[in-house]
Amino acid sequence: MATDSDFTPIREVGEFGLIDRMKTILGKPTNDDVLAGISDDAAVYRIDDDHVHVMTTDVLIEGVHFDRLINPMEYLGMKSIAVNVSDVVAMNAEPRYATVGLGLPETVSVEQVESFYQGMRKACERYGVTVVGGDTSAAHQLTISVTVVGEARTRDVVYRRGAAPGDLLCVTGDLGGAFAGLKILLRQRQELQERGDDFAPNVEEYQYVIQRHLVPTARLDVVRAWREAGVKPHALIDLSDGLGSDIHHVCTQSGCGAELHVAAVPVALETRRVADEFEEDVDTFALFGGEDYELLFAAARDDLEKIEDESYSVIGRFTAESDVTVKMPDGTTFPLGKGGYDHFRDESGT
Amino acid sequence: MATDSDFTPIREVGEFGLIDRMKTILGKPTNDDVLAGISDDAAVYRIDDDHVHVMTTDVLIEGVHFDRLINPMEYLGMKSIAVNVSDVVAMNAEPRYATVGLGLPETVSVEQVESFYQGMRKACERYGVTVVGGDTSAAHQLTISVTVVGEARTRDVVYRRGAAPGDLLCVTGDLGGAFAGLKILLRQRQELQERGDDFAPNVEEYQYVIQRHLVPTARLDVVRAWREAGVKPHALIDLSDGLGSDIHHVCTQSGCGAELHVAAVPVALETRRVADEFEEDVDTFALFGGEDYELLFAAARDDLEKIEDESYSVIGRFTAESDVTVKMPDGTTFPLGKGGYDHFRDESGT
Repeated sequence: MATDSDFTPIREVGEFGLIDRMKTILGKPTNDDVLAGISDDAAVYRIDDDHVHVMTTDVLIEGVHFDRLINPMEYLGMKSIAVNVSDVVAMNAEPRYATVGLGLPETVSVEQVESFYQGMRKACERYGVTVVGGDTSAAHQLTISVTVVGEARTRDVVYRRGAAPGDLLCVTGDLGGAFAGLKILLRQRQELQERGDDFAPNVEEYQYVIQRHLVPTARLDVVRAWREAGVKPHALIDLSDGLGSDIHHVCTQSGCGAELHVAAVPVALETRRVADEFEEDVDTFALFGGEDYELLFAAARDDLEKIEDESYSVIGRFTAESDVTVKMPDGTTFPLGKGGYDHFRDESGT
Repeated sequence: MATDSDFTPIREVGEFGLIDRMKTILGKPTNDDVLAGISDDAAVYRIDDDHVHVMTTDVLIEGVHFDRLINPMEYLGMKSIAVNVSDVVAMNAEPRYATVGLGLPETVSVEQVESFYQGMRKACERYGVTVVGGDTSAAHQLTISVTVVGEARTRDVVYRRGAAPGDLLCVTGDLGGAFAGLKILLRQRQELQERGDDFAPNVEEYQYVIQRHLVPTARLDVVRAWREAGVKPHALIDLSDGLGSDIHHVCTQSGCGAELHVAAVPVALETRRVADEFEEDVDTFALFGGEDYELLFAAARDDLEKIEDESYSVIGRFTAESDVTVKMPDGTTFPLGKGGYDHFRDESGT
């Protein structure tokens, strides 16, 4: 066992450093039914000759992932299901069952827990999920740990590892909105704290971006439409950490690189307006904001022709070189580092 | 949504009150594949005509379920897997896959997380579990949330609800040991704090009970032996909350009562010695101590004849009346209340 003198702070290795250590210590799965382990959005294991289940866990902790002053309990209930469903969707699978672990501080009331459950129910109805179990305990911080199991035909599953040079780099929806919403909510929280009850938050004007942050949508609609159209992307990931970080996961596992055109990255008008208001660069929101829960995928041009045009944007292509290059609107390029969001390195409130 | 004026503290309804509210708000599962939901040791859902998967989550939180001063990280890793495997075993299923959610405070080092993973690996090898995924985050308290999925033939699954009047009430192993171990460890922690580095904890003398607390064993060996012998109990639960609480879960769901003979409850010599040392009643340890992770089951006399004698003790019988009666060694009886351990009502350190 380690002695007290060996004390490496976790922030020195970060979340991905811990995952690497976990993989090394646990070793490669010896169970042949495991088709994907700790390296994708969700694990994949065989349940019969033609079907697999996928399984994923997300932990949401007060003060790290959310702030109860700006995240109402009902929305937290919805979000805690949606972010896990998003991981199931990112394997091209259908969500089925969930368990919910809750750590509840004394400052949370029974009524608030009920609001949380009501939010969970709404999200479960929307995505076809059944909550089959859970565990609750006292805790100092509100802690939410949800596990979702989903189902797919073995041949439908899409991994992160399938992108090939020449594939088009695509995303669904628009990016940066969740981060813009967070900026607005944090500003409103500050105004509320400074001006007390006199202050009425302006929610109307920023409805779209606030909702993007508080209640993200898992794009189950998109993968269902793909399956109906007979389209299967080559690689797939959900955009939780942020485009700039998640693109690296796909490239590393696929053994290729990518070229990303910033001018082509879809951004909503309201997101752009918020960036302007804060005098910040909207491209930063879109590249590094995170938490949009849209899908990034690699696809052949032929496949894209079978999909509805409005559901996605082509923002670049995969390349044979191993690095990720960003092309700015003015024609300049820069290499995109691997740094994404790491909860151990930044505790600034989201 | 609830207003601020509605503030019912969670300790007023407790853990089981929250579970009831969760069941009410989420409603009965509409998914026909769900054979058991939030009412048993683990949820049960169909994966094909003859097989089910079971799924369970347990949350372990520093300061509520454990204390890092007395629970070494490697043992915590083993325990966090074992307590979930125990829930799978309590459905008469085989554990298969696990995900691990970790909330890590700054006072935990990378080396300690590695010890935790090493403990997980040992437990996984022992029980045949593959860790397929997880999530880690910063947190104020060390928080461990493990979900385990297991597999069984549909006809092998044993629920809490199957006990019938006349069935024998049995338990595996011996009880109260985990609680005795906790008493010793808490005393040693106090001595360590008072006397500093001069103090060398006496681990040798209390080896059995300390190990019962730190590294509980899920009785996978027992259910495997039953299946080999063609024996299927009528009802089954694992003893996590404590005999006095868990017997009520079986009786309530089976719609019957029970008569429990305290003199027949198996207690290890070392457990008895610890109770004597503390001048406490060993029957209280055995009835209410909890965390022994042995199995309580209802069985017909014919079935018991097929099982090895040393693996279980008959400690009473199920009755047609709805209450649970305890017979003391001196012949007196008293009704056993439903109060078991509730993490929202007692935060005294376990």
